[in-house]
Amino acid sequence: MVSDILRFVKNLLLSLVASLILITQGGVAEAAPPKVGKNRMVIQINEDDSRKWNTVLGNIHNIRDELAREGASITVVAIGPGLGMLTADSLVANRVQDAIADGVRFVACGRSMQAQQVDKDDLIGGVQITSAGYVELMRLQQRGWAYIRP
Amino acid sequence: MVSDILRFVKNLLLSLVASLILITQGGVAEAAPPKVGKNRMVIQINEDDSRKWNTVLGNIHNIRDELAREGASITVVAIGPGLGMLTADSLVANRVQDAIADGVRFVACGRSMQAQQVDKDDLIGGVQITSAGYVELMRLQQRGWAYIRP
Amino acid sequence: MVSDILRFVKNLLLSLVASLILITQGGVAEAAPPKVGKNRMVIQINEDDSRKWNTVLGNIHNIRDELAREGASITVVAIGPGLGMLTADSLVANRVQDAIADGVRFVACGRSMQAQQVDKDDLIGGVQITSAGYVELMRLQQRGWAYIRP
Repeated sequence: MVSDILRFVKNLLLSLVASLILITQGGVAEAAPPKVGKNRMVIQINEDDSRKWNTVLGNIHNIRDELAREGASITVVAIGPGLGMLTADSLVANRVQDAIADGVRFVACGRSMQAQQVDKDDLIGGVQITSAGYVELMRLQQRGWAYIRP
Repeated sequence: MVSDILRFVKNLLLSLVASLILITQGGVAEAAPPKVGKNRMVIQINEDDSRKWNTVLGNIHNIRDELAREGASITVVAIGPGLGMLTADSLVANRVQDAIADGVRFVACGRSMQAQQVDKDDLIGGVQITSAGYVELMRLQQRGWAYIRP
Repeated sequence: MVSDILRFVKNLLLSLVASLILITQGGVAEAAPPKVGKNRMVIQINEDDSRKWNTVLGNIHNIRDELAREGASITVVAIGPGLGMLTADSLVANRVQDAIADGVRFVACGRSMQAQQVDKDDLIGGVQITSAGYVELMRLQQRGWAYIRP
């Protein structure tokens, strides 16, 4: 009889623990910002201006240099007239390629590509495509990335 | 006697569950960023430039299209020279009205209205007024809205 | 025998509570956004344009006025051509000094200072220096500061 009671208590407790863990994890999952590394920055480029592109590429170099020990994730999102930075015939194509090789992520706005009739093949190799640049910028910020508009 | 024990165990467990739920919810409530829908974006307009206004209205259309299934909350805050976008005689008044009808929120900076002697009646119907545009931008960001400066 | 069972149940429950509190607190601690004051805003200045500087100084005055009761922390980060706002010979030097006296924090980008051969002595008294302006902007955002690009 005692063992019956103990089995009853044990089962009750097991289901209790299970349901509480569910509650806890559910709540925490909702509350927790997605796990991100410490240093994450998303940079928005809207200008068709190679001087600005060069400045930003210099900035990125400095930021990575500054954070060399800690590491830093940098994403550049090119939208509208800024798309020209990421096409194969861009005046900064070589520097973009170098930055990609260094781990910087460059993303072209798919909507802007459509509007300007730019194909994937027209982009610098390694450039990624997102369906809508501003949506990418929103999602990254909401995952804890800092937003920079140079 | 067995039923006494079971009743004792049951009551103990019930109060345990109740207090743990309190702990859990209390903790989570403190930790949780304010509950916001997933997709929230606040767009700052500072320019007196109808081409830019049209671009932004097109962007908003695309963003809403892109997020049609999930839904998206979009607020546009017009500050300083950007206020002209939201006056009744704005070149984009019709498009702003359509966007308001679609659920986009447009907010005029009250300080800029004062400085430019713009009254509530001078604004497109449905445009809201905030006392200071930059404060609104701060508050929304701190509530989890992504910031976009087109 | 009943007391044995009760002791068994009691110990089981105590360890259960202890482990669940650990789970809960562990999760919550991880989920919590960094504790920051309510009103914090970091403003980025990139332009060599005294009209813009004056506008921003006016904005800061309005923001502080608007939030006089609650209080507000405001940091201005000057980068690249924006550095001129914070040099001793700046056209807005007096207004910057007044704002510093009022508790606004002005920060010069150290990388921009190097590039433009600007020394600490060339800056308005009370202006701080950060090694890289964009890194400062990232760190503040990730600590819950709202970002404003006027």
